[in-house]
Amino acid sequence: MTNPHDEHENFSTAIPDGDDRERLVCRECGFINYQNPKIIAGSVVTFGDKILLCRRSIEPRKGKWTIPAGFLEVHETPAEGAMREAYEEATASIEILDLLAVYTVKRISQVHMMYRAKLLSDDIKPGIESLEVGLFTWEEIPWDDLAFPSVHWALGHFREVEGKAGFAPFTNPAEWADV
Amino acid sequence: MTNPHDEHENFSTAIPDGDDRERLVCRECGFINYQNPKIIAGSVVTFGDKILLCRRSIEPRKGKWTIPAGFLEVHETPAEGAMREAYEEATASIEILDLLAVYTVKRISQVHMMYRAKLLSDDIKPGIESLEVGLFTWEEIPWDDLAFPSVHWALGHFREVEGKAGFAPFTNPAEWADV
Ligand SMILES: [Zn+2]
Ligand SMILES: [Zn+2]
Repeated sequence: MTNPHDEHENFSTAIPDGDDRERLVCRECGFINYQNPKIIAGSVVTFGDKILLCRRSIEPRKGKWTIPAGFLEVHETPAEGAMREAYEEATASIEILDLLAVYTVKRISQVHMMYRAKLLSDDIKPGIESLEVGLFTWEEIPWDDLAFPSVHWALGHFREVEGKAGFAPFTNPAEWADV
Repeated sequence: MTNPHDEHENFSTAIPDGDDRERLVCRECGFINYQNPKIIAGSVVTFGDKILLCRRSIEPRKGKWTIPAGFLEVHETPAEGAMREAYEEATASIEILDLLAVYTVKRISQVHMMYRAKLLSDDIKPGIESLEVGLFTWEEIPWDDLAFPSVHWALGHFREVEGKAGFAPFTNPAEWADV
């Protein structure tokens, strides 16, 4: 579908009335394209000592492994979004336990809210965004084929607090603080 | 500024190619109005035993008291957004300590990330969105004139963990879970 706003063809920058910074305003129809950070909701899902991973069937990072995660939709809590994503990507029914981490990818204005969750049944199969899904012990995780840095971070942070409860959620690893 | 997209006049619902749910699509120019949850970043800011509050100069809830908080901008972390808001509303220089709470207001698709923070100097004055600003002991807080439920929640949760560190952030009080 042609979308002149996505293409940025029609936009010029201007400070709208009552605003205090430049926004993208469409020359054609006056639409103000407020750009907002987006929330990704996901979870490290366990079944016994195994962790649920999904191999992506779509770009970006097609063919690589990820924890279930995706863009939060309107009228969802982040925990509900994480549950929906687990179901969409792996038909996984999960119970959210607690907030593991809040990561940010400033460059692309994403805030990732990653939970710990429990898989309620191992009746999983690939959803439309997955080529395959599986349960992996720590040693079996395909470390060299993970889709995103935040998947690495979440798995590492998960491991740090295994067996603990009542902790402050992690943020980006220090060497990735400003990505 | 006239904005046909804000008015919803031009939108009809359709499922765009490659999507799995109905979106608002502009009949005039094809723009897909993806509606995303928005992040509010704020903080309970203390100076000694006092808490920073700002009296709103703008709608909604003009004249009511709030903790500094507002919409996260692109390319900001939630902690940076909370710092910016404290400066904009009260010229307050703050240091973020930890994540106090993640609240959601599903009806309007807001996710509120509320931090604990320390005021670095009591040199505060009202910014353009504030009529006045002040430092209040717990007993002095104008409980009947707080602007939003989430301000009540954040102050109550702040009080619950005073002196503690390393806790899981709060979520909506149970009786407000589904607002
Ligand atoms: Zn337009
Ligand atoms: Zn349009």
